[in-house]
Amino acid sequence: MNIEKLKAILEDVKKGDLDVGDALDKLRDLPFKELGHSKVDMHRELRKGYPEVIFCAGKTVAQVKDIVGSMLDENINILATRASEEMYAAVKAICYDAVYSEIAKTITIKLQETIIPSSTISIVTAGTSDIPVAEEAAVTAEFFGNKVDRVFDVGVAGIHRLTHTIDNIRAARVVVVVAGMEGALPSIVAGLIDKPVIAVPTSVGYGASFGGIAALLGMLNSCASGVSVVNIDNGFGAGYIASMINKL
Amino acid sequence: MNIEKLKAILEDVKKGDLDVGDALDKLRDLPFKELGHSKVDMHRELRKGYPEVIFCAGKTVAQVKDIVGSMLDENINILATRASEEMYAAVKAICYDAVYSEIAKTITIKLQETIIPSSTISIVTAGTSDIPVAEEAAVTAEFFGNKVDRVFDVGVAGIHRLTHTIDNIRAARVVVVVAGMEGALPSIVAGLIDKPVIAVPTSVGYGASFGGIAALLGMLNSCASGVSVVNIDNGFGAGYIASMINKL
Amino acid sequence: MNIEKLKAILEDVKKGDLDVGDALDKLRDLPFKELGHSKVDMHRELRKGYPEVIFCAGKTVAQVKDIVGSMLDENINILATRASEEMYAAVKAICYDAVYSEIAKTITIKLQETIIPSSTISIVTAGTSDIPVAEEAAVTAEFFGNKVDRVFDVGVAGIHRLTHTIDNIRAARVVVVVAGMEGALPSIVAGLIDKPVIAVPTSVGYGASFGGIAALLGMLNSCASGVSVVNIDNGFGAGYIASMINKL
Amino acid sequence: MNIEKLKAILEDVKKGDLDVGDALDKLRDLPFKELGHSKVDMHRELRKGYPEVIFCAGKTVAQVKDIVGSMLDENINILATRASEEMYAAVKAICYDAVYSEIAKTITIKLQETIIPSSTISIVTAGTSDIPVAEEAAVTAEFFGNKVDRVFDVGVAGIHRLTHTIDNIRAARVVVVVAGMEGALPSIVAGLIDKPVIAVPTSVGYGASFGGIAALLGMLNSCASGVSVVNIDNGFGAGYIASMINKL
Amino acid sequence: MNIEKLKAILEDVKKGDLDVGDALDKLRDLPFKELGHSKVDMHRELRKGYPEVIFCAGKTVAQVKDIVGSMLDENINILATRASEEMYAAVKAICYDAVYSEIAKTITIKLQETIIPSSTISIVTAGTSDIPVAEEAAVTAEFFGNKVDRVFDVGVAGIHRLTHTIDNIRAARVVVVVAGMEGALPSIVAGLIDKPVIAVPTSVGYGASFGGIAALLGMLNSCASGVSVVNIDNGFGAGYIASMINKL
Amino acid sequence: MNIEKLKAILEDVKKGDLDVGDALDKLRDLPFKELGHSKVDMHRELRKGYPEVIFCAGKTVAQVKDIVGSMLDENINILATRASEEMYAAVKAICYDAVYSEIAKTITIKLQETIIPSSTISIVTAGTSDIPVAEEAAVTAEFFGNKVDRVFDVGVAGIHRLTHTIDNIRAARVVVVVAGMEGALPSIVAGLIDKPVIAVPTSVGYGASFGGIAALLGMLNSCASGVSVVNIDNGFGAGYIASMINKL
Amino acid sequence: MNIEKLKAILEDVKKGDLDVGDALDKLRDLPFKELGHSKVDMHRELRKGYPEVIFCAGKTVAQVKDIVGSMLDENINILATRASEEMYAAVKAICYDAVYSEIAKTITIKLQETIIPSSTISIVTAGTSDIPVAEEAAVTAEFFGNKVDRVFDVGVAGIHRLTHTIDNIRAARVVVVVAGMEGALPSIVAGLIDKPVIAVPTSVGYGASFGGIAALLGMLNSCASGVSVVNIDNGFGAGYIASMINKL
Amino acid sequence: MNIEKLKAILEDVKKGDLDVGDALDKLRDLPFKELGHSKVDMHRELRKGYPEVIFCAGKTVAQVKDIVGSMLDENINILATRASEEMYAAVKAICYDAVYSEIAKTITIKLQETIIPSSTISIVTAGTSDIPVAEEAAVTAEFFGNKVDRVFDVGVAGIHRLTHTIDNIRAARVVVVVAGMEGALPSIVAGLIDKPVIAVPTSVGYGASFGGIAALLGMLNSCASGVSVVNIDNGFGAGYIASMINKL
Repeated sequence: MNIEKLKAILEDVKKGDLDVGDALDKLRDLPFKELGHSKVDMHRELRKGYPEVIFCAGKTVAQVKDIVGSMLDENINILATRASEEMYAAVKAICYDAVYSEIAKTITIKLQETIIPSSTISIVTAGTSDIPVAEEAAVTAEFFGNKVDRVFDVGVAGIHRLTHTIDNIRAARVVVVVAGMEGALPSIVAGLIDKPVIAVPTSVGYGASFGGIAALLGMLNSCASGVSVVNIDNGFGAGYIASMINKL
Repeated sequence: MNIEKLKAILEDVKKGDLDVGDALDKLRDLPFKELGHSKVDMHRELRKGYPEVIFCAGKTVAQVKDIVGSMLDENINILATRASEEMYAAVKAICYDAVYSEIAKTITIKLQETIIPSSTISIVTAGTSDIPVAEEAAVTAEFFGNKVDRVFDVGVAGIHRLTHTIDNIRAARVVVVVAGMEGALPSIVAGLIDKPVIAVPTSVGYGASFGGIAALLGMLNSCASGVSVVNIDNGFGAGYIASMINKL
Repeated sequence: MNIEKLKAILEDVKKGDLDVGDALDKLRDLPFKELGHSKVDMHRELRKGYPEVIFCAGKTVAQVKDIVGSMLDENINILATRASEEMYAAVKAICYDAVYSEIAKTITIKLQETIIPSSTISIVTAGTSDIPVAEEAAVTAEFFGNKVDRVFDVGVAGIHRLTHTIDNIRAARVVVVVAGMEGALPSIVAGLIDKPVIAVPTSVGYGASFGGIAALLGMLNSCASGVSVVNIDNGFGAGYIASMINKL
Repeated sequence: MNIEKLKAILEDVKKGDLDVGDALDKLRDLPFKELGHSKVDMHRELRKGYPEVIFCAGKTVAQVKDIVGSMLDENINILATRASEEMYAAVKAICYDAVYSEIAKTITIKLQETIIPSSTISIVTAGTSDIPVAEEAAVTAEFFGNKVDRVFDVGVAGIHRLTHTIDNIRAARVVVVVAGMEGALPSIVAGLIDKPVIAVPTSVGYGASFGGIAALLGMLNSCASGVSVVNIDNGFGAGYIASMINKL
Repeated sequence: MNIEKLKAILEDVKKGDLDVGDALDKLRDLPFKELGHSKVDMHRELRKGYPEVIFCAGKTVAQVKDIVGSMLDENINILATRASEEMYAAVKAICYDAVYSEIAKTITIKLQETIIPSSTISIVTAGTSDIPVAEEAAVTAEFFGNKVDRVFDVGVAGIHRLTHTIDNIRAARVVVVVAGMEGALPSIVAGLIDKPVIAVPTSVGYGASFGGIAALLGMLNSCASGVSVVNIDNGFGAGYIASMINKL
Repeated sequence: MNIEKLKAILEDVKKGDLDVGDALDKLRDLPFKELGHSKVDMHRELRKGYPEVIFCAGKTVAQVKDIVGSMLDENINILATRASEEMYAAVKAICYDAVYSEIAKTITIKLQETIIPSSTISIVTAGTSDIPVAEEAAVTAEFFGNKVDRVFDVGVAGIHRLTHTIDNIRAARVVVVVAGMEGALPSIVAGLIDKPVIAVPTSVGYGASFGGIAALLGMLNSCASGVSVVNIDNGFGAGYIASMINKL
Repeated sequence: MNIEKLKAILEDVKKGDLDVGDALDKLRDLPFKELGHSKVDMHRELRKGYPEVIFCAGKTVAQVKDIVGSMLDENINILATRASEEMYAAVKAICYDAVYSEIAKTITIKLQETIIPSSTISIVTAGTSDIPVAEEAAVTAEFFGNKVDRVFDVGVAGIHRLTHTIDNIRAARVVVVVAGMEGALPSIVAGLIDKPVIAVPTSVGYGASFGGIAALLGMLNSCASGVSVVNIDNGFGAGYIASMINKL
Repeated sequence: MNIEKLKAILEDVKKGDLDVGDALDKLRDLPFKELGHSKVDMHRELRKGYPEVIFCAGKTVAQVKDIVGSMLDENINILATRASEEMYAAVKAICYDAVYSEIAKTITIKLQETIIPSSTISIVTAGTSDIPVAEEAAVTAEFFGNKVDRVFDVGVAGIHRLTHTIDNIRAARVVVVVAGMEGALPSIVAGLIDKPVIAVPTSVGYGASFGGIAALLGMLNSCASGVSVVNIDNGFGAGYIASMINKL
């Protein structure tokens, strides 16, 4: 669209409908706006029909509603993370198609179809309390147009549960592993497969888990190759990167 | 094979050659061994013709030489990281084709060709002192059979240097960004491109940089999407993951 | 039971009632399930008639009720830690025999008798505010079938209180010492007895106690031999290990 | 005046009206009192017509009202930071001209005009959630008699937004940059301009941002010259220093 | 011996060879010395013929030699940990039977036989660089009269190596698991066996391993039951506790 | 008394009323009990007429009431710190003479007079928000029978306020200095006087004050001699030590 | 210039010399390059005749020599910080006018005169061991063309030394205060003057000074207004900012 | 002396030998110098014939020699802490009476006698490796004119050693307790006596002792009343405070 606008200006200049001086005026601010839009361009392949993402934490219900409202005009898909039920009610009021995940705390609005690759993203958790973060990753990955295979509650205390499902995990193109407490699961998984593992430490735990630091350190110090790490509880970030890799 | 073994047991039971009790005994430990063997199997496919990696830090010269020696018999490619010049001299004595990178502190022995994809891995550093870690990543990525594009010294203090080379970085399939001090570069790069960014904090810096912790925290808290992080100074890990992604 | 199922399959193969191919199909997933069950087997001696343990923190009342419900069918003893009174009410509704400890925050259901060794586990606290953690350890140890001797409020500020009870402590086979603040009591106790001491730091304290870190560090740096440490406030873990040792 | 007092003592000694011993007694404590009084003197020149500042956090509504009340008698401008709406209501009741900023949480009372220099202070934020801290800085700077140019939401994830406004920022005499998460924006801004940058880390962020520590470390380790840092969320401090510099 | 001395005093009193007053004088200091010796008494079962332990770190060669020398007179077994080769040379000069372990850095002198139980202590390491700490544990356990089964280099990056040896580990009465980096191995082992696991974090690792803190936190936060932890690199402590448990 | 008991044993042995073996049995545990009793003895002299202290934090209203009740019978003075108004109401109900300090959060019951030395304890605060901690120290010191001189709000930001009162501070026998934020006041005071300074860091502050850690570190690193430190917010501890010193 | 380039493109489009598609191509990356070039422009004005700064830490002697050599051609002033004597010898060999400060560890080459404002920068230290960092600041400030007034060893332990020199400090336009240990001096100075204070924590100290962290926290938590902070030991940064402010 | 100088000026004014104007000139700078000297006055009682203290760490041999040299002229006692043998040799060369303690690393020069109170300072250590810090405290206390009773190696691992010497400790007027590792000894001692305890954490220990932080935290969190703490390894500070208290 912006490329269209830029093209239109150039066409007008070519046709003589637009003076070079006036064109310069129009373009004066464009480079930066254009920069924004050329960034969109550059990202075109990724973002075509893609959701924009709103990080709701620290925003008011009214702010979230306003941002969603202004986006609806552009007819694009929308993903809002860390959204409360109140935020969802406000968004639902202006867009009936909005969908809320209570566990992932996400609002999604799908106005355009996305092309979905045949390969899968596997999202694995160590325990049941890691599931909200894993669901944030899963909803994110699905919304960007990926097939997701959920493998929950296969933590290292009962390693046999992992071995039961390892074939499914191996079948994926990229694996997100979500774990709290000692954060050992990504190492185990990475030692058993040959695909990139995105590790997400969670703030699950107590005592000396320090709100996820123990898990974060465990993952950073993984003795298995192929593990990279995102911030504590950052399910969105993991889902986003997994989508990037799955769509390469 | 294992399925064969299991089938054989069942056949023997059927034929009456094997008592049900004895069969139970044979089956009791099978899962674990099976797990072990299926892993070796799985790894065989992955590792065929791939270099084995030796982490030399904390090993003696003699130990490194011994490990390399035992690997040479298997006729596979070898990568040794964190290797000293003394280790190199010892390895050179038993394998004339060993190559040493003084800056990356790696020994490489290439006995077999690897298939190299046409896509590139871009390895970017903020400063000149981040180059040793970046070279460890680069040598690793090249050794696993990837084309590497080095973009060094484009840190945020002179953001214009980055803009000069951003097109090259965009052309890569995956980007490794190596930075110390405040560790801001991965965020900047990830905001300008649409490929996964593997961020490597380095222990470069002084005062409150705490041996790379400041950079690590900066990267984990990146406000740009698409950044995942490996351990401080872990160039090998970044190169390994980048190779995994580039070869998907 | 699973061994029974496996045996039945083998019997059917032997009798010819089951085709080897069909048996293979049935067994294909078994190894991993079997792994799980063989783990139960391996643990049989420990777990026969033993409670299963549910860590309630982070679970909803409904989830706890569901898990307990599904366990009741298996006719096994149940221990739920970090349980709220609401959880207890919900469990009580489906199992009248459920018992709640307000101080230890545990729900216990004893359906089967456990064999209780003659030796004792001594559970010692420095202060009165350490008692909830100590009770979690005590309830755990008792539920796994151990005799427990409680020795509370004998902290180092009044070392003479400890000396009054040291004979009781010495009579135990293994000692759990629970302490907050500076965490010195396990060192003192270990210096006076010849049995293994399991030290539990508690988050009791203020100022620079950092939620139990001061106590944890004090215990890890104990200059007395024979002290090992579990996580802050982890009464369950200490009770579990003490039971393991007492039953050796 | 004090020199006068000292001279008078010497004159009295000379005239014999004052004993040497008594003179010694009078002189013993003089330096300290002198220090105190010369400081009051020095401060009088500085503070003439300047607002006094009340840090309301940790004070009761009644205390804040009392302090404001006692200041009103001196007919000076008043700035109260970290003020609640209740505090504002109480202050409003005794001074109708009191103004409240809901976002900056400040109460301001302007009884005297301040001379405003022609140069500007630019106050920049990385995200929208950094705005409250930035507004505290802005209200502070304005109250001390400075023109403020607000440049909000130009963080590093979309560096093009910054480039759009960099000319405005360059036009300022001193720049306050407010950022949470990885805290990289001050480095970027300082690399693009030649004016002092006062960096304010905010506690905005989650996971391993540790309530602003990640941003603080990022700013302290800035690889760009010209950045100094104030405490986390200390908008007032940044506005105060910026005013000091702008008025030099 | 001291009991002998006390008995002798009492006998002398009984026989009238010793006045009650004189006996009181003799006993005046005895309670405390007696306390020391009654502690020996109390520990008699444990310590009969047991080595005394010298922690050499921070001691001079001369000090170590002196301490050993004074112990030799008592004809007891001696264990010195963290001993340098120089210390060994000095000790060897006064006791030809002294034995040095270069890898465990221990000097042992065995003058009396110890009764060795039939059960085994299994000492497991994650990597080869954890072996020195494991050897300190092994030498300690052996010296206190235990059979030790070494299972080295079975870390989580290649979990199949662990499964090959799990039966040996299960056969032990108590297991010491030594691991650096992310410290996940004790969790894995404890999930597979039903014996107490003593976890020893090592300072092996780099980057964000923080000299063993990452491993320590991983072990404290283990989601598997039955794991207790000793200080970083404290192989002696682990071997001592394991011996205590094995001899119960 | 114990010496008497010991003598009696010896006499019985002498008379033949007690067998040597039985005497040995009686003596085995004596040292510990003796230790315990000599401590009670020693404490009796110290505590005669002294208040007992109850740390209320973490106790229930009922527990506090019970403890006070049982103490009232012994007719001793009582100090309860960190007491809520509810606790005070409950105590008041059983002892009309109980006095509550709202700011210090203390309950005091004075049943016996204490001898008050003529020297003074000076209690100094940096800011007004440090006063609650200072009052806990003051009430404690007064209750143990000391004259207290309060010098509040003389922090380093306005050092002239300190100089106005330094003579009063110098007149004290021991000085307690309470400060939050950067905790510099104890250094300043200790540099100006020649009496011991007990420094109390407070959790007052925000941002990187970390709940008093900044102040604590500032005080530990004081470049002035004569400063020792107690825990964060530990007004009671400071008042107790100051009383000890003042009464020497 | 760039506007010219943009105009030329538009003219070419108008004249039909440039296809709209090709024009689009040319415009796509322009913003970024433009950003780069406008930055160089902006910097040209700033940097004319200014020294370039080389941070020598982590560079080899050869690298420093090379960088200096390439700069000499541009006939600009050069400042090298953290330079060793070996580096100085190498630089001296190619530029006889190079000057070395042994205490500040700086090499300076002054090829062009700088305009020096009449106002002064005051550089203050708490102790003698803070002088190297202060000298780095002083040399930096002098090299950028400022008059520097050194006021050393006036720390808070002997506050009277400070009062002796406070008039000199007040006379400066901006003050750099360098302090280790508890880092209280900047607060004291800022409380006595009305000029901006740049605080530099130093790694001087021992025990719980943690290599300057105690001083850093002390400065960040300063209760005096007008203090901003740079990294530990960052004398260069402080001198640079002070110069920026002094030259406004 | 300075009071003498001031008195002389006043006398001259009185006698008319000095003009009031000239006297003012002479006095102009005096207030601050006077401040210094009035501080000496104020400290006269403490310091009469007292050693001045030089902290040698971070000073060169030449600097230490110079400082000692300039002090010798004033005929006062001198204490230099953290002094190397080289420093001692240099000092010995200019003052034959200088005495060096190899273990405390102190140089002492005693030119004047000090009055020694009859009461004692008890200096207690947990282990033998805490002795150097304890000796620094002891030498300091002795040099300021106190009798010192050394009680070494009575740590909590063998609490009976402490009970052996507790009477001696009780006899002191103030007690310094030096301990590393878990730092529990000061709590134990303070629980057994009624005198102020100055606790000194030492950096002795390994693993998670973190250079004395574990001991420091243990001491700050002491559950016994009467313990205040100085910096890690700060034997001098403890000896200084103990002397202050002993001489009250």
